[in-house]
Amino acid sequence: MSENLFERHRATLDKALQVIHDRSYWSAYPEMPSGKIYGETANDDGKAAFEGYLNHSFAIDQPGSIGEVGQEESPFLGEPLGIRYPKADIDILIPAMQAAMPAWVKAGPDARAGACLEILHRLNKRSYEMAYTVMQTTGQAFMMAFQAGGPHAQDRGLEAVAYAYREMTATAPSGLWEKPQGKNPPLKMLKKFNIMPRGIGLVIGCCTFPTWNGYPGLFASLVTGNAVLVKPHPGAILPLALTVRICREVLAEAGFDPNLVALAANDPGQHLASVLAMRPEVKIIDFTGSTANGDWLENNARHAQVYTEKAGVNTIVIDSADDFKAAARNIAFSLSLYSGQMCTAPQDIFVPRGGIQAGDQHLSFDEVATAIATGVSKFLSDPARAVEVLGAIQNESVQRRVEAAHDLGEVLLASQAITHPQFPKARVRTPVIVKLDAKDEKVYMHEHFGPIAFIIATDDTEHSIALAAKATREQGALTCSVYSSDEAVLTRMEEAAAEAGVALSVNLTGGVFVNQSAAFSDFHATGANPAANATLTDSAFVASRFRVIQSRRHTD
Amino acid sequence: MSENLFERHRATLDKALQVIHDRSYWSAYPEMPSGKIYGETANDDGKAAFEGYLNHSFAIDQPGSIGEVGQEESPFLGEPLGIRYPKADIDILIPAMQAAMPAWVKAGPDARAGACLEILHRLNKRSYEMAYTVMQTTGQAFMMAFQAGGPHAQDRGLEAVAYAYREMTATAPSGLWEKPQGKNPPLKMLKKFNIMPRGIGLVIGCCTFPTWNGYPGLFASLVTGNAVLVKPHPGAILPLALTVRICREVLAEAGFDPNLVALAANDPGQHLASVLAMRPEVKIIDFTGSTANGDWLENNARHAQVYTEKAGVNTIVIDSADDFKAAARNIAFSLSLYSGQMCTAPQDIFVPRGGIQAGDQHLSFDEVATAIATGVSKFLSDPARAVEVLGAIQNESVQRRVEAAHDLGEVLLASQAITHPQFPKARVRTPVIVKLDAKDEKVYMHEHFGPIAFIIATDDTEHSIALAAKATREQGALTCSVYSSDEAVLTRMEEAAAEAGVALSVNLTGGVFVNQSAAFSDFHATGANPAANATLTDSAFVASRFRVIQSRRHTD
Repeated sequence: MSENLFERHRATLDKALQVIHDRSYWSAYPEMPSGKIYGETANDDGKAAFEGYLNHSFAIDQPGSIGEVGQEESPFLGEPLGIRYPKADIDILIPAMQAAMPAWVKAGPDARAGACLEILHRLNKRSYEMAYTVMQTTGQAFMMAFQAGGPHAQDRGLEAVAYAYREMTATAPSGLWEKPQGKNPPLKMLKKFNIMPRGIGLVIGCCTFPTWNGYPGLFASLVTGNAVLVKPHPGAILPLALTVRICREVLAEAGFDPNLVALAANDPGQHLASVLAMRPEVKIIDFTGSTANGDWLENNARHAQVYTEKAGVNTIVIDSADDFKAAARNIAFSLSLYSGQMCTAPQDIFVPRGGIQAGDQHLSFDEVATAIATGVSKFLSDPARAVEVLGAIQNESVQRRVEAAHDLGEVLLASQAITHPQFPKARVRTPVIVKLDAKDEKVYMHEHFGPIAFIIATDDTEHSIALAAKATREQGALTCSVYSSDEAVLTRMEEAAAEAGVALSVNLTGGVFVNQSAAFSDFHATGANPAANATLTDSAFVASRFRVIQSRRHTD
Repeated sequence: MSENLFERHRATLDKALQVIHDRSYWSAYPEMPSGKIYGETANDDGKAAFEGYLNHSFAIDQPGSIGEVGQEESPFLGEPLGIRYPKADIDILIPAMQAAMPAWVKAGPDARAGACLEILHRLNKRSYEMAYTVMQTTGQAFMMAFQAGGPHAQDRGLEAVAYAYREMTATAPSGLWEKPQGKNPPLKMLKKFNIMPRGIGLVIGCCTFPTWNGYPGLFASLVTGNAVLVKPHPGAILPLALTVRICREVLAEAGFDPNLVALAANDPGQHLASVLAMRPEVKIIDFTGSTANGDWLENNARHAQVYTEKAGVNTIVIDSADDFKAAARNIAFSLSLYSGQMCTAPQDIFVPRGGIQAGDQHLSFDEVATAIATGVSKFLSDPARAVEVLGAIQNESVQRRVEAAHDLGEVLLASQAITHPQFPKARVRTPVIVKLDAKDEKVYMHEHFGPIAFIIATDDTEHSIALAAKATREQGALTCSVYSSDEAVLTRMEEAAAEAGVALSVNLTGGVFVNQSAAFSDFHATGANPAANATLTDSAFVASRFRVIQSRRHTD
């Protein structure tokens, strides 16, 4: 069965293996929520499936359950989902997961890759259902919830499988070693090279992109032979619980022990992640969340390989622009998308206090700042359209942060509450934009997660570049963006970004936004600045999830 | 120049890239110390070069030298070498190394690989000279000093270059991303993917295999764009100082700043390694040495990627043998080679107390133990031959440990001092072999570095396997060896070794010894047990030494 799965999905894997080298455009899973692609009833079916989960127990047939947990609330519905998940008895669950591993290891890379590709295929078929679970836990608008929660997350999972497969097969499973001995017969040895996993992989999810940020670690650990324990954020359990259930279904159908993937859910205030992380059986941890928690894991879970994505300060340097209107539109969209609750959303926008050259016009600092603020307010002026971009605020702490941001400086654009046409209780807030000076480092040199942006007056573009580099080096960053008509400035910015260790987007004025990171092409995070110690996905992200253990003996 | 170097050595690199996949036999650098290969005067020249270093200052034209250090003593000559090395002023040296990096980074993977391959080529030409420096610092006999210190170390360096080159080129340097937009024109972006180094790589050498253990980290860090600071063990500075000098010569000739590789030598008692490791500029550390020091680095140098090789307990499980005489001969050689001062030398030999089946004979435990002990004493009975295998004891603490080992149990073979025919003051000791019972874990469940072996009576082979696995899991191991005529036993041992995370050698009775680890074929250490957190060399060893930093912009 599992070998058949490998053959069934081999073309997909082969294509992924090619594209992770070329880093050109490709997507294995269609991003359009279209009935023509996913089936005419897919939307209704997905919605009905989601609604069926509400106020019920979400059963997962894993061993060692002691009662139930679950206190998710929907940012759109403004009320609890009422879904209850098994509470894991770790002392029973972990040994069951360990017992599942030997057969999974023995099956080898092809069989494991086949099963993982089938899981991704099943997840893809259920993208509508997944979209509703992501939307109603994270607050993402439907289109983003579908794309980022479904096909884009699946692409990121496939990308991780491809990298891991490439590394696992970079060493031949066995080889003949034949050393000449002059006139004597050669020394001949047969050597076997076994791919051995590290142990239990722990995936600690976040409440904004539970699948997109969770799948790379989940699939990288699983395909390399490890069992994976999934610990969702208590605010966004359902998308990962559904993922775990689908993983288990496919694994069982493929003849493997479903306990290779299990769920450990918790309620807010129950400190489960740190307890799980300190289990000696846990050898790999993938974490997305706060810097405090990420640093804690790095400092304390020393027995495990720890991959973290944490807070950062994403910057935009505006030096000049051929078409500043298009630049401002692009920036306005980036600030608005999912209410700035993307780890890739820009926060600090550096503009020379003397203004910029925009085509043949000179724009003052205030004109630049006003253009961006006006861009946001105009863009969001129609509530029906606005909510499809903004989504909802995931939790109250983000909302409180938005409110507090109005006291941080001169408000260029105040945040507004918008009534969602479909969900009257939804927590919808437009971005707040605050004007600052370069000397206000205490304000802008740390992350203000949410729809909060600063437009910061600098001495000149060199100063802007230096501050963007400083923010990246000291606070971390997932993205950096520059606008300039001057190739020399772009070269300096590229050098500064490479040196500081952040991916750079240059002169985005069209349909690509700095927040967006395309699987197979864009590396998400670099591992070279404090925002993350790893990249989604490169060799370094997968290569330490397994070890090659050899055995050699003489042969004739 | 540097591009030419890449072309000049391209066939060597291509072959290495193929063999690191196949893990078949290959060596780029001839292991025979033969005048036909290295030149008829090579031996005399090398010896003269070494002798020219004695009692002189070893000049290295690196910036920031404050006085001199150097207190090496020769285990063969029994007296100080009298060679003095520049003492580095780190506050001057490190900035100079950092200043050397941008041009090295910009040159790209091909140019860097070309320069590294030229360095290895030059090192190879000076293998005789290197052999004398290794011999007279480590105590290795000449043949081992030539092979392990020269060609085999160079092969390991080349292997690291090949792995790093493969990973650096696994991502295209640039690519076109073209995303279809239905009826609209596609979104098109040009993306650049820059290979960026981490910073300064620190290589902390050991006193037994300074080049063999040092080259993988040195070349892996250097070829990926980092500058490398080499901190030799105070007891074996010369081989790495010579290496640094050759690196600097080649780099300068190739048009690069020689400060990409520099030396930081120290005297015994000066705690330099920990000071260097805690410099924030140091981002990669490669360490070979004690568990205490390795653990300290892992726990404290948290700002750096730390690769450690530490202590371990290597085991042999004897279950049965078709030709036990051949097995005993093989084991006797393994125990004698370089006086057990190899990190791969066996220490704990587990034998069922009821004896073993050897062909159609039954041998009692004592007969097995005596056969091994007699094998060693016979093998070493001719002093002239013995010293060519044993070499000399590197330092007095090893000698004291040998003496103390006689009190650890029933002595099966006492260590003897041998007078070296050529070097009358040489510190030469034959192995001590002690009989123990499985219950004596306090004695045999930790490393006794040096020519010290235990033959341990167990309940049966299952018990032996369990103890070997326990030693590996808890104390770490670089090698494990099994003798059995029973395929079922071999399968169980293979599973246990893979599970515990140690490379296994099966039924070695001929010209391959468990101590030996062949570049391009055998992985040295696994990273899966406490003896090392990394492998020489695999993808995981190189992939985190650089990061890919991208830049994207729209294109037409």
